[in-house]
Amino acid sequence: MAERFEIRLAGSGGQGLVLGGLIMSEAAAIFDGIYATQTQSYGPESRGGASKSEVVLSKEEVDYPKATNPDVVLLFTEAAAEKYLPMCKEDAIVIADADLVKTEIPDKYKKKVIVPLTKIAKEGVGREFVANIIAIGLIRELTGIVTEASLEKALMERVPKGTEEMNRKALALGKEAAHTYGKHVLDMKGK
Amino acid sequence: MAERFEIRLAGSGGQGLVLGGLIMSEAAAIFDGIYATQTQSYGPESRGGASKSEVVLSKEEVDYPKATNPDVVLLFTEAAAEKYLPMCKEDAIVIADADLVKTEIPDKYKKKVIVPLTKIAKEGVGREFVANIIAIGLIRELTGIVTEASLEKALMERVPKGTEEMNRKALALGKEAAHTYGKHVLDMKGK
Repeated sequence: MAERFEIRLAGSGGQGLVLGGLIMSEAAAIFDGIYATQTQSYGPESRGGASKSEVVLSKEEVDYPKATNPDVVLLFTEAAAEKYLPMCKEDAIVIADADLVKTEIPDKYKKKVIVPLTKIAKEGVGREFVANIIAIGLIRELTGIVTEASLEKALMERVPKGTEEMNRKALALGKEAAHTYGKHVLDMKGK
Repeated sequence: MAERFEIRLAGSGGQGLVLGGLIMSEAAAIFDGIYATQTQSYGPESRGGASKSEVVLSKEEVDYPKATNPDVVLLFTEAAAEKYLPMCKEDAIVIADADLVKTEIPDKYKKKVIVPLTKIAKEGVGREFVANIIAIGLIRELTGIVTEASLEKALMERVPKGTEEMNRKALALGKEAAHTYGKHVLDMKGK
């Protein structure tokens, strides 16, 4: 891992981005021994339902917990794409929901991953609201930033009883999606 | 409100501090039009179950989302008291769970509030896990940092269906506790 690794999850309230970020941080810190912070920032725009969750992972204590130059950016709504795409660095992994984001992600983003997260959730598990879990499974597979076992453990500690199987399946669908929609990123890994 | 108002909720995993902080931030930002951030930081100590949630409220966009000199500190376990009391400023509102914290809070903290949050939860609602909601009801009443209506609205949007009544009651118990255990703080308010 680099000294500092930043993830930004941007979308709307109800998409479970806070929970997604929380689970990633807990996987890193509690099970992988990495320092982690997870931050939500709310401004007047929150009234319109915008939601942003940021995760910073580091080998050392995280001094500044906001993402300043994210390595991974999830764009989960069109509004999120319009706001956050312009500030993405070119070598970031830019993940966009294929159905919810209309903005075209330019080809200069060589690690863009356009993936129908919400559709996969609906068709694969029958519940749109697990799209956030599919997203973190996808991010994990693309980055290797936390281990698969840690992410599953952290997930199991946060989800309501009775939903474990559904959530485990969502994680697996995210992993699968990384190979289907993000093979070019996996091929570039480490280069 | 001052330019920046910081709240630190420190205890252990399972006490619902992340949710408590989230609800306070959302009350402030979504319903009261204040900028808010909510941050969890995790380090190697998280393995032992320590949990810390911080809320920063501000009239302007929050640049640095960690609490640097909290105005309110909730100490929800003995370990949290040992770690965070030494760095409390003297005029902070220091809230300690009367049964879970053994460390004596020195009298120089004129705004200390020793309150049996967990016991109130158990006796008043029958569920220990709403102690976090009692805590935010208490903090709201002591500080007035968000409105009562906003906090209730934010709470209702975050709690599981079917638990609304229990959570509303927990909020009311927190308000009541502010008058029973924190009357001296209410008397000092604005001085």
